[in-house]
This record gives sequence, C-alpha cells and structure tokens, in this order.
Amino acid sequence: MRILLTNDDGVFAPGLRALYGALAGNADVDVVAPDAVQSGGSHSITIRHPLISQTVDVNGYFHGTAVEGTPADCVKLALSALLPEKPDLVVSGINAGLNTGINVIYSGTVAAAIEAAMMGIPAVAVSLQIYRDMDFDGAARIAWRVIDQLGRHGMAPGQVFNVNIPELKPGCPLGVRVARQSVRQVIDQLEKRTDPNGREYYWLAGDYGNLDDDAPTDRLALRDGYVCVTPLQFNLTDHALLAEMENWEWSDLG
Amino acid sequence: MRILLTNDDGVFAPGLRALYGALAGNADVDVVAPDAVQSGGSHSITIRHPLISQTVDVNGYFHGTAVEGTPADCVKLALSALLPEKPDLVVSGINAGLNTGINVIYSGTVAAAIEAAMMGIPAVAVSLQIYRDMDFDGAARIAWRVIDQLGRHGMAPGQVFNVNIPELKPGCPLGVRVARQSVRQVIDQLEKRTDPNGREYYWLAGDYGNLDDDAPTDRLALRDGYVCVTPLQFNLTDHALLAEMENWEWSDLG
Repeated sequence: MRILLTNDDGVFAPGLRALYGALAGNADVDVVAPDAVQSGGSHSITIRHPLISQTVDVNGYFHGTAVEGTPADCVKLALSALLPEKPDLVVSGINAGLNTGINVIYSGTVAAAIEAAMMGIPAVAVSLQIYRDMDFDGAARIAWRVIDQLGRHGMAPGQVFNVNIPELKPGCPLGVRVARQSVRQVIDQLEKRTDPNGREYYWLAGDYGNLDDDAPTDRLALRDGYVCVTPLQFNLTDHALLAEMENWEWSDLG
Repeated sequence: MRILLTNDDGVFAPGLRALYGALAGNADVDVVAPDAVQSGGSHSITIRHPLISQTVDVNGYFHGTAVEGTPADCVKLALSALLPEKPDLVVSGINAGLNTGINVIYSGTVAAAIEAAMMGIPAVAVSLQIYRDMDFDGAARIAWRVIDQLGRHGMAPGQVFNVNIPELKPGCPLGVRVARQSVRQVIDQLEKRTDPNGREYYWLAGDYGNLDDDAPTDRLALRDGYVCVTPLQFNLTDHALLAEMENWEWSDLG
C-alpha cells in the first residue's frame, strides 16, 4: 500500500512524525506537507503565486517535501506532479487539536483529506485533543488501527473519514464511535485592543475547544472518551431545502 | 431591512460596488470587506494575527470597512464587534467568476455566506461568469430580484443560498433554476517552470471554468443560460455512509 502523508501543522510537526512512524511499518509512505503552520487555513489554494517546494530531512527520521503552500496545495502538487504513482490512500495529521463540530469547516487538516477525495483517492484526517504532554505516538498507533479497520471495510474513491482522538489518559479511549459532525454555533469573542500607535485592532479569541453538544455528534463522542470517526463529503447542497425550493415559483428577472 | 455586504475580491472591487448600488435602494447596507483580493481563500480565518481594519471611502460611492483579513474574518468581525446591531441578511459578492461545482469549496465568497449562516444569519453569495466587459450593474439588478424573491419565501437563520449568474448577453438569463452543486472532478494542471536561479517550481493552472456536467447541477443550469440558486449547508457529514458505518464492528484499539 502507498500512502501520501500530509498535515496542516507543517512538515516538522511532532504529530506528522509520529503518524509517519505508525504508517511506515505498514505501507510505503511519501510525505508532502506545508513548510509552516497553516492553522485555520481551511481549503485555501494558492492560485496567484507559484508553489515552491524542496526536499527536507525531518530530524533524521525521514525525508519529505516541504511546500510553501497550503495543505490542499500539497495534495494537488503531490498527486498531480510530484509522486511517480497515485497513492492508495491520503492521510492528514496528526493535528494538534480536535477537528470536530464547526472546526471541521476551518480545518486545513480536514481540507487536505477532502482535496484527496475530490481527486478520487480515499482519505483520512486524524486529530488529537490538546492536553499537557500530548502523546502523539500513542495516538498514531490508535490512528493506524482505525485506518487498518477502515481499509478492511473498503475505502472507496471519494470517501473521507475524519478521525478525532481524545486525551489519552488511563482507560481512554473506550473504543470507536461513529457519529455525525456537530453544527453547534461557536460564540466568537473578538478582543478589542489598542496598538502602540493608538489604533484599535481586534484579535479572534473564540473558544473553539468548548463546543459541548448533547446530541449524538462527534463532540459528544469525544467527551464520552471515544475515538470518533465521521464520514465527510464535499457536496454542500442542502438537499432537504433544495427539494422544497423545487416547488417555488420564480417571477421574471427583467 | 439591514444587510451586511462583503466579498472576497476586496472592498474596492467593481462587483461589490454594483451590488451596493442595487441593495442600497432597498435596505440599509453596511460594507465590511477584505482590503485585498482573497481568491481561493476558502473558509480561512485569521487566528495567529490581529485583525486590523479601517474605514475607507470607496471612490465616492459609499464608506465601508476594509479588513486586513479573509471574507470569513470580515463576517465574524462585523457581526461580533463592528455592527451596532445584527443584520437581517448577509450578502457576499458579486464575485468576478462563477462559484459552481468544486469551486464552491475553494470560494471565499461562498465561505463568507456560510460563516454568516453558522452565526445564525441567513446569507446569499452572488457570483457572475467571467466574460469580456462584465456587466456587474446588470448582474446586481438580477441579484436583487433573486434576493427579494428568496426573502418573500422566507430565509431562515442558518440558510445559505449560492446564486450564480451567467454571461449577460441578449436573451439571457432565461430565468431562475434551482439545482444542486456539481461534484465533478477538476483535472488540475500544475505547470512546471524554472526560476531565474535554476530552481524548479510549479504553478496551479487547473481549468476551473470548464467543468461541464450533464447531470442536473449548477454547472448545467449556467450552461443552459439560467441563473442558478443552490441552497448550501455546513454539515459535511456523509449521512448515507454514516448509516452504513453504524453497523460496522470495531475491534479493540489497544
């Protein structure tokens, strides 16, 4: 099996190194990842600038390609130009911080996986809850076991699986739970400050970590101590509203 | 009615000015938009830097707030900090170029509308096909007529409507068609070049304009000469696959 590994925390991030370690024993792994942190970058792509990349030695662990671009750029570049053959799977992560609920929309980690799916390769995004002394190696072993089981069920082209792993404390995780994305609203806090020249500015300080949801969602699965797997898709159509709208009358536009 | 107007081509873009003109006769319009072009920026948000903004005079037409940030940043900043009261509607556009099919995923114009919906305000994204001497004023009049009719049907909090307008040539548009997003794959072309210092780089040159789709989608509606309205949502869960996965057995993660 050939795997393309990417992320949004950058090629030197500890989450990527740990995931490389868990995958490399089971597959041929190519690494193409951003050269710098891309948090909050969502599904950005670079159109107006060139994509510059170089081979880097990641602290003696492996060689990878560092791209001056976004996670989605990395997937496009790898699949369309850099890799000699298409991988069987694209894996993105391990992200430092959960990508559940509304964060799925902002996540570069998830966007990389969705980009792969849009290009016809099945993909898995992996994220780990932020806590003190995060155990990326333990999370990577769990990620591989989940990926291996997804593979046994058969991952089809276009399928994307969003895997979130809770804090690894004794007795956790309790197992795997499959659940939908929470769409609970985040309350943004924009802190108003004044710069040294007396001009006002704002800093986004929404508490994206604290999105409690008692509905059977990804958020609840994590709170209950489970690894959550959510299948995603990139057709944003609201089909229920579409069906309703098909009966609407539209008057002339002139 | 109070409308927040934003875009991803920047506060000085002709599409925004035209849309302001069409909306301002029918509503109180506040403009909060990026200070520079953000094409391909998708749903990026600015977390690691402050959001700096200033009031600008847009060529004598109106005053708006220019934000050094993304379209989604503009919506967050406007709704959470800048506007004295919540608007009834957020409108994003008019984008220079269609946001149909896979482009919906990359679009900052659409992301701004989705951000508003996530914050509980109904929203409309408006995009116009690229052609020679684009008639933004004509497109803005059409956009207002569509928005007005959407309003008569009642736009609920959380609803997002993606409106795409074809080239305005004699006899076009033929009317309004409601259709789903096309998910037809884009074939990326990454052009390989060499810089003046002999290093290779790539430039993304995917033909995003040419996404023919014969299925009853947004792409077909535009090709047929209709204004297309697609209701969108921000729950990315693949519910069909989720239902299937709920029957899967998962072995121990230990």
